[in-house]
Amino acid sequence: MCRFHFQHQTAKPCCCNILDMTSSNESAVDIAHVYRGTFVHSTDHTAVEILEDRLLGVDTEGKIAFIGSGQEVDSLAQKWGFEALAVTQLGQYEFFMPGMVDTHIHASQYSYAGTALDLPLLQWLNTYTFPVEACYKDLEFARNVYTHVVKRTLRNGTTTACYFATIHTDASLLLGQIANDFGQRALVGKVCMDTNNFVPHYRETPEESHDETNRFISEMLKKKYPLVRPVVTPRFALSCSAALLGHLGEIAQNNHLHIQSHISETKEEVKLVKELFPDYDSYTDVYHKHNLLTDKTVMAHGCHLTDEELKLFGEKGASVAHCPNSNISLCSGMLDARRVLNHKVKLGLGTDVAGGYSPSMLDAVRRTLDTSKALTIQDPQYQTLTFEEVFRLATLGGSQALSLDEHTGNFQVGKDFDALRVNTAMEGGPIDLINHGEGPLVLLEKFLNLGDDRNIAEVYVAGKRVVPFVERS
Amino acid sequence: MCRFHFQHQTAKPCCCNILDMTSSNESAVDIAHVYRGTFVHSTDHTAVEILEDRLLGVDTEGKIAFIGSGQEVDSLAQKWGFEALAVTQLGQYEFFMPGMVDTHIHASQYSYAGTALDLPLLQWLNTYTFPVEACYKDLEFARNVYTHVVKRTLRNGTTTACYFATIHTDASLLLGQIANDFGQRALVGKVCMDTNNFVPHYRETPEESHDETNRFISEMLKKKYPLVRPVVTPRFALSCSAALLGHLGEIAQNNHLHIQSHISETKEEVKLVKELFPDYDSYTDVYHKHNLLTDKTVMAHGCHLTDEELKLFGEKGASVAHCPNSNISLCSGMLDARRVLNHKVKLGLGTDVAGGYSPSMLDAVRRTLDTSKALTIQDPQYQTLTFEEVFRLATLGGSQALSLDEHTGNFQVGKDFDALRVNTAMEGGPIDLINHGEGPLVLLEKFLNLGDDRNIAEVYVAGKRVVPFVERS
Ligand SMILES: [Zn+2]
Ligand SMILES: [Zn+2]
Repeated sequence: MCRFHFQHQTAKPCCCNILDMTSSNESAVDIAHVYRGTFVHSTDHTAVEILEDRLLGVDTEGKIAFIGSGQEVDSLAQKWGFEALAVTQLGQYEFFMPGMVDTHIHASQYSYAGTALDLPLLQWLNTYTFPVEACYKDLEFARNVYTHVVKRTLRNGTTTACYFATIHTDASLLLGQIANDFGQRALVGKVCMDTNNFVPHYRETPEESHDETNRFISEMLKKKYPLVRPVVTPRFALSCSAALLGHLGEIAQNNHLHIQSHISETKEEVKLVKELFPDYDSYTDVYHKHNLLTDKTVMAHGCHLTDEELKLFGEKGASVAHCPNSNISLCSGMLDARRVLNHKVKLGLGTDVAGGYSPSMLDAVRRTLDTSKALTIQDPQYQTLTFEEVFRLATLGGSQALSLDEHTGNFQVGKDFDALRVNTAMEGGPIDLINHGEGPLVLLEKFLNLGDDRNIAEVYVAGKRVVPFVERS
Repeated sequence: MCRFHFQHQTAKPCCCNILDMTSSNESAVDIAHVYRGTFVHSTDHTAVEILEDRLLGVDTEGKIAFIGSGQEVDSLAQKWGFEALAVTQLGQYEFFMPGMVDTHIHASQYSYAGTALDLPLLQWLNTYTFPVEACYKDLEFARNVYTHVVKRTLRNGTTTACYFATIHTDASLLLGQIANDFGQRALVGKVCMDTNNFVPHYRETPEESHDETNRFISEMLKKKYPLVRPVVTPRFALSCSAALLGHLGEIAQNNHLHIQSHISETKEEVKLVKELFPDYDSYTDVYHKHNLLTDKTVMAHGCHLTDEELKLFGEKGASVAHCPNSNISLCSGMLDARRVLNHKVKLGLGTDVAGGYSPSMLDAVRRTLDTSKALTIQDPQYQTLTFEEVFRLATLGGSQALSLDEHTGNFQVGKDFDALRVNTAMEGGPIDLINHGEGPLVLLEKFLNLGDDRNIAEVYVAGKRVVPFVERS
C-alpha cells in the first residue's frame, strides 16, 4: 500500500497548551458563535499549526474568545454559557484558516485585469493605467468597479485588503464606503501624484494633493468605520516631487497613519529615481528622508532593493508587499523573498491588480512559490520557500506587513475572527479528493495549489459572515 | 474616454476568404448542427484569427462541413439543407475556440496532484511516483482515478490528451476504455520500464515489457475506438535498457504507432544518461538510434536540449511537449520555447500531472507565459511569447505535436469539430466583465488569464457534446 493509496499524515504537534488560550475577561464576554472542527493557521514559531477537533468561540464583538478541545464541549459550554447543540460542526474535508491579507491591490485597475500585460512598467502606466485611472472622476464608473473588486476579493478569501484607489478624493471615499458596506477590513489610499508627463490631465498640484489628502483622511475618519482606515499613498518617487513627499510624510506623522507606496519594482525605475533624486543615498532613502518609512509603511515590490536598503527597512519596521504575479507579468524582476525574511523585514503578499492579472490571493500564493522555485532553478543551493511558509505570508505575514496583526492574521484569542471556512470536497469544485484519507496538511496543500472560491464556503470578518453575500436592498 | 472605459478593439482581419471554406463533397453530407457567433482559432499564419458572426455547420460524422457568414444564413440553410431556426446562436460574451490539447499528462499520478512537490525529479519519482503507480495493478483503484482524470480534464476543456498510464496493461486498457466512454480524444500509453532500483516491485523484465506492449497495442486496436489510440511509451532513458528501447522502437516502426517519452527534463538526468549511454552522441541520439525519434514522437520537457539535438528533432519531425508547471514546481529548468519554435520543431503544451499540479490546460497556458517572461527578466532582449502564440500552442500546436492536426486543432473545414463554447460572462464565474464593450480578443485574453471550467459552458469532441456530462447508467 503506497502512501497515497490511503493517505496518512502526521500533523505537526501543537507547540502551545491550547487549553490555556482563553481571554482573561471571560466572565464579561457573551459568546455569539462556536465552531468545532479543524483550524489551520500560522504562528511566529510554526508556519502551519494544525489544531484538530477544536472548539472556537467568537464573542459578540467578533473576537476570538476561547479555543478549547472539542471533546470538552460540555464543560466549555457551561463555562462560556453557550448551548452545546448550537455548535457549528465542520465536515471531514473542511477546515478554518485565517482570512487572507492582500497587502497591495489597485482597486481602480480591476476593470482591465487579465489584459494589457504586454508592456514594461513605465510604458504600461502611461499606456493603460493612467488613462483608466483618470476615469474615476466619474463616481458611477467608480462605484461599479469598486463594488466588483470588493465582492470579488471577499469571495476569493481576502478578508483584509490594502487598496490604491486614484487621485480622486470622492471616488476614494466611495471605495472605503463600499468596503465597509460589504464588511471587508481595508486600508484605502487616495493616490497622490504631482508629476505625470504622459497623461497630464491625470495629476495634481502639490497643494491640491496635500489638501485633498487631508480632506480624504478627515472625511474617512469621520465615518468611524470599524474596519476601514485611510492610508497615505504617494504613488511612487517618480510621480511625486520632493515637496509632495515632504507634505505626505508630515501628514502621516501627525496623524499616526499607515503609508503605502511602490519601490524598486524595475531596474529602469531604480535608475530614473537615482537621476531624479541624486542627493539621496538610495531609493529607500528618498522615502526615509521624507518620513515615509515607518513601522506603518508597506512598500510594494522591492525586487531590486540592496542589502543596505533592506537593513533600513528592518530598522524602521517598514514592510515589503511581494507581488509575484505582477513582477512576472510585467517582466519587472523577481523578489528574493528569502533574503527579505533573512533581513527580518516584515513581508506580505499582494495581487497588485492589474499589473498582476489575478484578484485571488491563492494566485499570489502559487506565484510566490513559482518565483522561489525559479530562483532555485537559477541557483540549486537557494533555500526555496515551502508552501507552509507561503501560507504564513498570505495570512499572518500580511497582517504584520500592514501592522494589523494585533487584530487579525491568525487564530489567537483576543484577535478578531477573520476566517475562511474551506471545504476541499465542495461538489462541483476544482479539487478531486480520491484517496479519502487525506489529513489536514494535505487538504491545505491541495487547496493552496488547486482550490478556488468554490472551496471557500464562508468568509468571516470580525466574526461576521460576509460571504456568501446577503442581497442588499 | 479611456480605451477601457468603453472598450473597443479591432480584430485582426481574416486572411482567407472564409466563404470559400466549404468541403468538396457538400452534396453528400448531412448537417447535424449549425452554430452562429464568434469563432476564435489559430492557423499556420495567424496566431489568433477571429471570425465574427460566422455560421459553422457540423455534419453527422462530427466534421466541420462549412463555415459561412452569419448574414447568409438563409442561403446557407438552403444549400446545406438545415433549418435556419434550428441554428444555435451564441451570446454576446460567448465564443467557440478549438478544444485544448494536453500533449503530456500522467493519468496515474492524478491521485496526488497538488501535493508532493518538494523534491527534485529523480527523488520525486522514487519517493512519490513509483509507489503510487505500483497501485494500479488494482483495477478498481485504477478505474476510480482514471474516471476522475478523464472527467476533470474534459471539464477543463482538454478535448485531446496524451496519457501516460502505468506498466500495467489491463489498467492502461481501462484508461483507454474510460476515455472512449466519455468521448475524449486520447493517446494512451502503457508505460515501459525495466530498470528501477528504488522500487524494485515496480518494473518489468525487457521480455515482459515487450510482450505486454504488444498485447496492449493489439487489444486496444481490437476495440476500434474512434478517437482513442495506443502510444508506445518508454518511460525515459534512465528507466529503460538499450534492449528494451530497441524492442519498442521496432514495435512502433512495424505498427506505425505514436511514441512518447521524456527527455532532458533536469540537468542531473542529462548527466546520468550521458554516463549510462556513453556511446551515443546525445540524449536525443539514444532515442534516435533506437528508432524512437519519428514524426509521430512527442518528447516531454526538453529543457536542456542542445541546438544539435533540436536540429535532429526538426529533421525527424519529432515534437516537444512543454510542461512549464512541472518544470517550475520540481525546479527542473525552463524551456526556451522561442528557441524550439525557431528550430521549427513542433511544440505543444502539457500539464504533466502530477509533476505539474494542475490538470487544466489554462494553467499550462499561464505558466508558459510566465516561463517566457521569466526568461525575459533574465534577458530583456528575449523575444517573449505573446498570449496569442501561447493560445496557438495550446490548440493547433498541440495537435501538430501529436500528429493529429489532420483531425483537430482548429476550425478548418474537414476537421473534426473539437470545440469549447466559452462564456466569459458566466454567472457565478471568475471573470467580471465591467466595461461591457469588450471585443473578442479581449474576451479571449480575459478567459486565458482569469477563466476556469465555469466559463466552459460546453465541450465538443468530433461534433459530440461531451460536457456537461450526461449521467450514465
Ligand atoms: Zn502597485
Ligand atoms: Zn511526465
